[in-house]
Amino acid sequence: MRYLVTGGAGFIGSHVVDKLLKDSHMVRVYDNFSTGRKIFIQDHFKKKNFELIDADLSNKKILMASMEDIDFVFHLAAHADVRSGINNRFIDHEENLEITHNILEAMCKNKIKQIAFSSTSSVYGDATIHPTPEDYPFHPTSLYGATKAACESYIHAYSSYYDFQSYIFRFVSFLGPRYTHGIIFDVLKKLQQNSKSIKLLSDGSPKKSSLSVFDGIEAMFKIIEKSKDQINIYNIGHTEILTVSEIVNTILQTVNLNRVKKIWLGKESNWKGDNEFVLLSINKLKRLGWKPKKSIKEAITETVLYLTTNPK
Amino acid sequence: MRYLVTGGAGFIGSHVVDKLLKDSHMVRVYDNFSTGRKIFIQDHFKKKNFELIDADLSNKKILMASMEDIDFVFHLAAHADVRSGINNRFIDHEENLEITHNILEAMCKNKIKQIAFSSTSSVYGDATIHPTPEDYPFHPTSLYGATKAACESYIHAYSSYYDFQSYIFRFVSFLGPRYTHGIIFDVLKKLQQNSKSIKLLSDGSPKKSSLSVFDGIEAMFKIIEKSKDQINIYNIGHTEILTVSEIVNTILQTVNLNRVKKIWLGKESNWKGDNEFVLLSINKLKRLGWKPKKSIKEAITETVLYLTTNPK
Repeated sequence: MRYLVTGGAGFIGSHVVDKLLKDSHMVRVYDNFSTGRKIFIQDHFKKKNFELIDADLSNKKILMASMEDIDFVFHLAAHADVRSGINNRFIDHEENLEITHNILEAMCKNKIKQIAFSSTSSVYGDATIHPTPEDYPFHPTSLYGATKAACESYIHAYSSYYDFQSYIFRFVSFLGPRYTHGIIFDVLKKLQQNSKSIKLLSDGSPKKSSLSVFDGIEAMFKIIEKSKDQINIYNIGHTEILTVSEIVNTILQTVNLNRVKKIWLGKESNWKGDNEFVLLSINKLKRLGWKPKKSIKEAITETVLYLTTNPK
Repeated sequence: MRYLVTGGAGFIGSHVVDKLLKDSHMVRVYDNFSTGRKIFIQDHFKKKNFELIDADLSNKKILMASMEDIDFVFHLAAHADVRSGINNRFIDHEENLEITHNILEAMCKNKIKQIAFSSTSSVYGDATIHPTPEDYPFHPTSLYGATKAACESYIHAYSSYYDFQSYIFRFVSFLGPRYTHGIIFDVLKKLQQNSKSIKLLSDGSPKKSSLSVFDGIEAMFKIIEKSKDQINIYNIGHTEILTVSEIVNTILQTVNLNRVKKIWLGKESNWKGDNEFVLLSINKLKRLGWKPKKSIKEAITETVLYLTTNPK
């Protein structure tokens, strides 16, 4: 099979690329290297079944050309900085929804019928049911969540019009090698600046589930292998959940800085639109024969070790 | 109170304007008259508490200025021709989602905190539960439904960021005076061209609920009066449902053309993305003390009489 992977040089994208190439598929990566890194994919540069398009997805001409002879699109490129949406209220719209719309349109014109899309737990917003199942309605509290929800709806419409087979993955936060942003990144950065005390958002009580990227990649490919509906929607997460306080403690233990003074800035310090309790039901995914292999704490430790040994 | 009504010269919008003016509110209509009609609102032109902005909502400068001193926005303007989305796959995006995004942004900049928005049964797509409740997830089969679903998600995000109080109405088809497009319009137009035989889409079996616009307006204002959550989502529909065949027969009876030969073009003739069974649960709305006063057949008859006496 011939795959196009948008955001293929990013954190999740590059792991998808590794897996596809390992399985001897042809892979074309499309990345503008805004957050993706050449170093994540450079081992593949000389492979015959690997191609790289170094361009922005807003370039419709290059996007159209990139679809040539493709069987399956992994659309993983996104503006994933959830926090910034309240200050720049058009960036999620442009980089998530408009780009996804252009990709669906290019697929339709190129008669490509399969897409996998990275959605998010943020589409549910502050869910009142935990673990939250896939049929819980959309109540996003951020423009990141809103634009990802919108992308899902556009995928539904194009799938209905053109008989696409679509895979929609609603991810919790992923952890592991090549992790490039998020709480572990922020905490380590602060510790670099000051290893005696650290100021932290919230009061430590928000609860977040997360998942090792290796478990996440296995889940994605298990779903594509086993689930054959026209539109296949799956939460990809963990049965475990940690408080932000527990996450921070795990990071500090890993870098042997347990005695750092933690200054919690309080509930009001948390950014508007954050969801303080994220736990997705993964029963649908488990029924396909998948379960997470790593605990969240193991995944945090692995991420910390990766970031401290790859400081750039 | 001071109200801005986008699409205020349209079918539903002009009835909202009538009600607001009857209740002595200040009303500013914003309409580009693409489908709206001056005749629907001309009785108000000389009233002191009525203003008209004859402009396109894509003009951000005029949109910003239109919000001055406004307390509450009824955003009813939309590209409502569901069928055309498969051929023009950007028009719903531009006229529904982008305009709504601009309105939310203009509200935020003008510190306006209340919005009522016309959504649709189409967000549910081909629902498997009937009557379909409000917490049924989005599975739109058309870009019209997808962009309306997207608008709802953006309203959620802005409401979360800026503490808007939002009213989201998911309408079935409305019928009654000032009706401008839809099956009754199409059937009467065909009968004008040929009163002996009529070619009809589908096999007549799709089932659609609809509602008198007068009942719909009462429902909207009942919800705004009684429901005080931050985000208030209500289906607005009828407990009754008719097949397309019954709808056509009701039209023909009203114009005394019962003997017209009906040629059903078959299931394949139906347009892609249509939902062939639309019946919304209105239990949530009924709990506020509202119920429809007119039967669907009465509403069809009223619409036919309106269209035949107002042939333009």
